This record gives sequence, C-alpha cells and structure tokens, in this order.
Amino acid sequence: MKQEYSINLRKDAPIGVFDSGVGGLTVAREIMRQMPNEKIIYFGDTARVPYGSKSKETVTRYSKQIARFLLSFQVKTIVVACNTASAYARDELEQEVDIPVLGVVKPGARTAVDVTRNGKIGVIATEATIGSHMYNKYITELNKDVTIYEKACPLFVPLVEEGLWQDPVTDEIAKRYLSELIDLDIDTLIMGCTHYPLIRSTLGRIIGEEVTLVNPAYETAMELKRLLAEQDLLNDQPPKLGENQYQFYVSDGAEKFKRFANSIIKYGILSAKTIQIEDY
Amino acid sequence: MKQEYSINLRKDAPIGVFDSGVGGLTVAREIMRQMPNEKIIYFGDTARVPYGSKSKETVTRYSKQIARFLLSFQVKTIVVACNTASAYARDELEQEVDIPVLGVVKPGARTAVDVTRNGKIGVIATEATIGSHMYNKYITELNKDVTIYEKACPLFVPLVEEGLWQDPVTDEIAKRYLSELIDLDIDTLIMGCTHYPLIRSTLGRIIGEEVTLVNPAYETAMELKRLLAEQDLLNDQPPKLGENQYQFYVSDGAEKFKRFANSIIKYGILSAKTIQIEDY
Repeated sequence: MKQEYSINLRKDAPIGVFDSGVGGLTVAREIMRQMPNEKIIYFGDTARVPYGSKSKETVTRYSKQIARFLLSFQVKTIVVACNTASAYARDELEQEVDIPVLGVVKPGARTAVDVTRNGKIGVIATEATIGSHMYNKYITELNKDVTIYEKACPLFVPLVEEGLWQDPVTDEIAKRYLSELIDLDIDTLIMGCTHYPLIRSTLGRIIGEEVTLVNPAYETAMELKRLLAEQDLLNDQPPKLGENQYQFYVSDGAEKFKRFANSIIKYGILSAKTIQIEDY
Repeated sequence: MKQEYSINLRKDAPIGVFDSGVGGLTVAREIMRQMPNEKIIYFGDTARVPYGSKSKETVTRYSKQIARFLLSFQVKTIVVACNTASAYARDELEQEVDIPVLGVVKPGARTAVDVTRNGKIGVIATEATIGSHMYNKYITELNKDVTIYEKACPLFVPLVEEGLWQDPVTDEIAKRYLSELIDLDIDTLIMGCTHYPLIRSTLGRIIGEEVTLVNPAYETAMELKRLLAEQDLLNDQPPKLGENQYQFYVSDGAEKFKRFANSIIKYGILSAKTIQIEDY
C-alpha cells in the first residue's frame, strides 16, 4: 500500500542520514553508489557515540533531536543508518515526522529471510541492538519457522575504529564471538552493526564460505531506492556544477571524523562541520 | 599557601566524585579505603561515555553540567576522577565554583617525578588525555630535566569493560602499545586512565618489574586527604546507622552500572539512579 505524506516533498531535496558516529558512512556509501544523483545530509553523533550501550529512552531522545536537525534542511526522507537507533527509535520517529523514515533493521531482516535455506539465521550486533531483539521480531513476523541466534560483539566497534580491520587480534576476537554460531550451523549471518562490513573479510573467513553474509547497509540503500521510486521522489537531475552534494555534520571532532570518513568513502569529503546537537 | 573558600563548608558534607563512566570508581574506592568516614556522591556520565575521544570544548561543557549537579548536594569538594576531564576541564571548573576541585592528573604527575630515578617517565592514557599533553605539562613544571614519553592506548577501555582483565588478547594489545616504551628504557609508567588499574597485573608483567607503575587514583585520594586535613574539613564522625554513605548517579543504564560497580567496589552498592544530566 502506498503511504501518502502530508507535506509536499521535492525530488531534488536531500536525503537525511544519521548514525551515532562513523559507522553509518557504510550506508551513505551505498546510497552514493546506487543513487548517484541524490544529495545527502549526514549527521554523526560523535559527541555521544556509542549508542550500542545506551538505553532505549536515551537513544530515542537523541534520535529525535537529530531528526529535528535534519528536517531543518527540508530532507525528503530520513535514513536511520544505525542499527541501535533503528531498533530503538525508528517507529517512534516515523510517528513524529511527515516524511518517510527508513531504518536498517527491517531491510536486513527481510534479506536474511529470503536467502536462508536451512532456516537458521545468526545476528551479530552491539549489546543494545541484540538486547532490543528487533531483528528477531522482524524476522519472526516474516517467517515464524526461522530460528534466530543472536550474539552481542561489543569489541568489534573499537577494533574497527582502531583500524585493526585485518589483524590477528580481530581474528581471535571474531573466533570467540562466532564459535557458538558456527556450532549452531547457521547458513546466514546478519552484520547487524554498520561498522561490521568493514571487517567483512575477517568475518567471512571465520564463519566459513558456506554462510551468506547479509549487509543491511546495502539492503537499506536498495529499499530506499524502491521507496523513492514508488513515491516519485528519485532525483533525476545530476548535481549542478560546484554544488555541495554531500554535507557532513557531527556533534564533535569534525577533523577526526573527516579522516575516518575519507578512509571509507572515496568520493572526497568536502566538508565536515561540528554543531551543537543538544540545541535541537 | 592555604587557599580560602568563600562559602562555609561543613565537615560532614559529602565529597562529589565524577567520571565519564565506571573508571572513576577506582578513585572512589581509594577514597573509601583511605577515608572511611567520608560520604560520597558519585556521578558517572554513562550516557555520554567515553570522554577520551571527545574535544576539550565538549568535555568542559559536560564537566560543568556535572559540577552543577554535584553542587546541588552541597558537596565540600569535587574530585574529577577522569583523566580526560582533569586534563581538559579542571582548571576552568575551579574558577567557576567556590569549593576545592581536585583532578587526577597533578597528583599522578607529582608522584611520577618523585619516584623516577633515570628521569624517563612513560604515560599511557586515552587519545584525549595524551592529546592534551597535560601530564607532560605538569611534570615539566615540576622538573624540566625529566623526559616524558606519551602513548595513547584506545583499546584498553573497551577490553576492560568487556571483562578481559586477564586474557591473551589484552596481553597482545598491551605488548603492542608498550613496546616503544620498553625500548625507550622508562623506569616509571603512569596509568593515566582510571580503567587501567584494573589491568595492572597485565601491564606490570609486560612492562617489566623494574618499572614503577603509578596509579593516579591512589595518589589523588592521598592528596584529597591532605587537602581536607589542611582545610579542617575531614569528617571525624562515622556515618550514622542506616545512613546512605555512598550514593551513585548515572546518566544512563543504572542497572548495568550497578553490576560493574559491584565487581570493583566490595562495599555493596546500595543504589544507583539515572538522572537527566543535560538539565543541569
């Protein structure tokens, strides 16, 4: 069923994307790849990162502040590019704003249900995402015969942020976190945190090549494209010459963010600005 | 020189202690050990942890909010039990409030200068504390002939919080972080983050027994005792029967905080309450 939105949205309006920090850049990167005409306003809550160990109330409050900030740019849709915020706050956000709000959890859950053959799906994520059981909930709604095994992996984010993408320590930690899932004979593994695609090769090697890795960042960009097409909101014009197509805002440490972002996104980060998110 | 404070402070008033999260509990524990009569109001900023990767402006703003919260309990002194906040915000806090403000950096620096024999001191801490060069500054003020070697160790905090206090992975990471300092022949190592005393045995084993480990938490409690004695503010009365001597407040996740706190402090955490720190 096509949902109607109460305000007039423009095709050339930007897409708002937010995350607790840098992880959501893997989602922004997929949007850039799949929809090269689209403009993006990205917000990374680097002052209050990580969300993965915070409560639902706190993550929801933070997400609402960020949505208000993004709406000040007249964005045509908001992508919650953070699994924790998607799990905790997406539904409440959607009720508060007049534009579509897309999380990463549902698209990831749907793909996992599509690809599993033996009906055993593993989910790895932060403590908060696992604690919310949102992947479990969505997957069960789609297919109640699937069995889901969840595992919190709190050290992956700091290891990724320390740059140990290919490292014996990351291997060792991955072996510990994944060993139960290997024993349980899963055939599909959801990388339920936006940082995890950055250690995809380590995860793939350790979990074994017979297991399909699901990247919700990729699936979310696909879903976004479908949604925008359905609402006739896809931007059919390439950016104008000299236009700042991608804008990045953070709540702290813009320089450090820029360095990390440039290691993930190869389009060249033109600018990153620090704003006071608590004012929104 | 004895400093005079403009308001009347009571001996039986509590001591305010704050940290970005749980690390400052190592400081609170030392205060409990060394001054068993004192009451403590502890605040852990668990919603906004970690401070170690944030900017000076942000850490100072957060610290001022927390100071206002602690002052609402009529505390007689504030202990900044977080190296990052001590490095970035202590001096500014002291100018804003009418009571003594004690950080952990100066006491740690002073002890290191006292115990070094070859004049080569290593400092390990978070990125922010190292980036502030405050240990360097204080040590150089005390003795300009000492050479200081600083090393940021961003993975130690997540490893400690994941409970890997004795673990081959922590050993491996410690070897990498400490190898330069070993090569530089330091004889004194400041554990410049309140989490680090929890992996003291690992650090001691890897750096070698000829190196003296300085624990600023211990030194800060000693300094606090001297300061209170000097101002005639030491509490000479034991707590009354049934009195809640130690009160713990956090900005998020009180239950999780309580569990971690109980693994560090053996006095039994009676209560931990979540408050909205942004309102202060």
